[in-house]
Amino acid sequence: MVCMGSAEAYKYEQIADDIDHLIEVGAFKPGDQIPSVREMSRQRDVSISTVLQAYYLLEARGLILARPRSGFYVRTDLPSSLPEPEISSPTPDPTQVSVRELVSMVARTDTLEPDLVQLGVAHPNPSIVPTQDLNRCLASVARTMGDAGGMYDYPPGCEELRMQIARRSLASGCSLSPNEIVITSGCSESLNLCLRAVCEPGDVVAIESPLYFDALQMMEALGLQALEIPTHPRDGISLDALRFALDHNEVSACLVISNFNNPLGSRIPDNKKRKLVRLLTEYQIPLIENDIFGELYFGDTRPAVAKAYDREGLVMLCSSFSKTLCPAYRVGWVVPGRYYETVEWLKYTSSLAAPTLSEHAIAEFMAGGAYDPYLRRVRRIYERHVAGMSHAVRRFFPEETKLTRPSGGFVLWVELPESVDSLELYKRSLEAGIAITPGYLFSATNQYPNFIRLNAANWSDEAERAVERLGQMITRLA
Amino acid sequence: MVCMGSAEAYKYEQIADDIDHLIEVGAFKPGDQIPSVREMSRQRDVSISTVLQAYYLLEARGLILARPRSGFYVRTDLPSSLPEPEISSPTPDPTQVSVRELVSMVARTDTLEPDLVQLGVAHPNPSIVPTQDLNRCLASVARTMGDAGGMYDYPPGCEELRMQIARRSLASGCSLSPNEIVITSGCSESLNLCLRAVCEPGDVVAIESPLYFDALQMMEALGLQALEIPTHPRDGISLDALRFALDHNEVSACLVISNFNNPLGSRIPDNKKRKLVRLLTEYQIPLIENDIFGELYFGDTRPAVAKAYDREGLVMLCSSFSKTLCPAYRVGWVVPGRYYETVEWLKYTSSLAAPTLSEHAIAEFMAGGAYDPYLRRVRRIYERHVAGMSHAVRRFFPEETKLTRPSGGFVLWVELPESVDSLELYKRSLEAGIAITPGYLFSATNQYPNFIRLNAANWSDEAERAVERLGQMITRLA
Repeated sequence: MVCMGSAEAYKYEQIADDIDHLIEVGAFKPGDQIPSVREMSRQRDVSISTVLQAYYLLEARGLILARPRSGFYVRTDLPSSLPEPEISSPTPDPTQVSVRELVSMVARTDTLEPDLVQLGVAHPNPSIVPTQDLNRCLASVARTMGDAGGMYDYPPGCEELRMQIARRSLASGCSLSPNEIVITSGCSESLNLCLRAVCEPGDVVAIESPLYFDALQMMEALGLQALEIPTHPRDGISLDALRFALDHNEVSACLVISNFNNPLGSRIPDNKKRKLVRLLTEYQIPLIENDIFGELYFGDTRPAVAKAYDREGLVMLCSSFSKTLCPAYRVGWVVPGRYYETVEWLKYTSSLAAPTLSEHAIAEFMAGGAYDPYLRRVRRIYERHVAGMSHAVRRFFPEETKLTRPSGGFVLWVELPESVDSLELYKRSLEAGIAITPGYLFSATNQYPNFIRLNAANWSDEAERAVERLGQMITRLA
Repeated sequence: MVCMGSAEAYKYEQIADDIDHLIEVGAFKPGDQIPSVREMSRQRDVSISTVLQAYYLLEARGLILARPRSGFYVRTDLPSSLPEPEISSPTPDPTQVSVRELVSMVARTDTLEPDLVQLGVAHPNPSIVPTQDLNRCLASVARTMGDAGGMYDYPPGCEELRMQIARRSLASGCSLSPNEIVITSGCSESLNLCLRAVCEPGDVVAIESPLYFDALQMMEALGLQALEIPTHPRDGISLDALRFALDHNEVSACLVISNFNNPLGSRIPDNKKRKLVRLLTEYQIPLIENDIFGELYFGDTRPAVAKAYDREGLVMLCSSFSKTLCPAYRVGWVVPGRYYETVEWLKYTSSLAAPTLSEHAIAEFMAGGAYDPYLRRVRRIYERHVAGMSHAVRRFFPEETKLTRPSGGFVLWVELPESVDSLELYKRSLEAGIAITPGYLFSATNQYPNFIRLNAANWSDEAERAVERLGQMITRLA
């Protein structure tokens, strides 16, 4: 304990309050380094121990943390003054999905408009993904493969890449072998193949609610019915509700994003994943698991995939490199368990082969050892961006706003005051040059009229001003 | 008329017969240049006019042709001593397609075996496709596009490429606009999207018979029934038979390869294409047209596509660059006519986006002006290869063999003596290190047990020896 007189005591509280205020107004943002102890001591003409005392106080308030041999940083998980949304409570009956028109109107046109401040579509940050490094690998494999690089690569696809994916599966609790994996044209194709493998048109699929619209559209295109299951904003799908749904409906498959649901950012705790798999195994219902955000966790360890608890080959694990490395390469994969033969064959009959050079380029990138250092960097960036945007939402949105606390990925799910119609907000924000995604798109049964999804991937001063503008619009609409 | 005595007359007939024999035994192959008039005159110690007389005789026999300022060449369309197969006469009832097991057993394993003499799968010749040039374009667009080259390219896909495709449509009788075109992951995906757009599981699709197995498998995977229509080995689908079929069945779509059916090499004459479209329009049935081989014609002019005669948007034109430029790039396209919205949406919900860099690389390659010179070269090569293989089949296969006379593409369809089982032949040829495709794979109703498809794309001395070996096996099996 450092001893000091009351004048000094006043001073350290003042310093702490000042920094607290600067964090509150966003002058210091989550992840920012605050002035060093020595610098602050000079600036405020106080002793080193007084500054340290101020910083300890800020630590105790949960606002900053010390990084050994580096300094003090604003925490990315600032204590929220906004509550989380409640667990969802969607309609308990299966519904024919019908979001096509809305999605066509909203999400797809936005992506074609380069001048918008893009808080809508869930793209990764284009200046963060290692496009140049990957393209160098692409050029390199193009040279070394010669004529072979020009030919069809039939399912299951590039063995080197399947080998790399198999190795990484260890971190997510599995020990996949390369011959359990089929390379696809992205996670969308993976999900599509899985749904086609286990469902007929008219069948019912149990899904988390809310769920991102591309999955809903896919179900619509395949003529499937959605059975939306209550989902907790941090722990994911409710197992009690799921069991009830299975008892009262004929369900052909269950689809979840176990790590970092889009839009919730929820993560099904690993032990709950085990229970989820056990429950579905009891009913012999396949689980289609989307793990596309799995590598973008905020904590210290990679969460497991539900596949890790699969004893009977009932879990079909889907993923891709589109959120981490390169959406443009169109390379994903699927581990279809007992449905391997069917999924591989459906891949073959749907799009014949995988993009040869892209597969090999990613395999080379991964084999070169650059993937993990890159992921470490990128996780921290997205964590800061999500924290920064959360902070801005707290500052600028009305008090009644509720906000998720994602444990990975880069999107936020925001519950606005009940009177705010997200489609109206969407239209107004678009006029102001800001793209958001209205909540209507995340349910087959219009559960979320006053919700929006915000993508924090491109967080910036411009994005912060956009959130401020949104806040003003919402206040006017409320 | 050149006058000469009987000794000289004998000499010119002798020279003609000698060269005739050398062509017959394959010493001079289709497309080869024969010795110049001057050289032959010196070799045989006869007058120039005698040699000319000999060459005129060979021309009259249909064996050689003169190319102005170049010399005399062995014709690539040598008069066949083998008749063509008859028009096919498949079962007149729709049939649930079921070729999966056979295809898995046969075609897919072969492609993984690099040491086989590959006369089976219909791949283009890997040493002919301009892989290196394209890869240079790929590296170039990767550099110039920067971050944008790393992002999703949503349907309809790369505008520059759609522009290039639209321009080329002129040569095939159309005037497509770029916004009628959707970029896909290859022709297989195009066909898949079209079938899904206009058919439900259980629906009947009228198809040419025989038809390559990937199309049949695709129908099987979508739960569609095939109605096989008699098809002429040179003129394609029989319109009388098609009309009869439409009168007696509820047909949801018709699928043809109007230019160079795989495996027949047939081309529906342009006027017949017009009638085909008129017939289907009368019944309001969509035509799914596969034009993947359309650029690989042997004559002087690009045959039209059926789409050129489409007045009501009922023709859905599918193609790709996989047979001409690069199978590995997975870039195709579809012109879905009145089904545009549905097809574009199905593309979006099936695989989300197109491979960005690959699309742009092909667009750059085409814009650079290299495509047409390349195609001119490649058409002549494949014409020679098909002629060479036809010639070898005539020499080495039993007399009762029947053989197609393709007017484009690079495959031959061979009818063997009735007693020869193509699956048995397939097994024996595989033991001898030769891959062929047995006829069983080209029908949903086992129409072609004694047929095989041969791919001439990789024609070589080694391939010729393989055809000789095949001939011996067939003779033993007959």
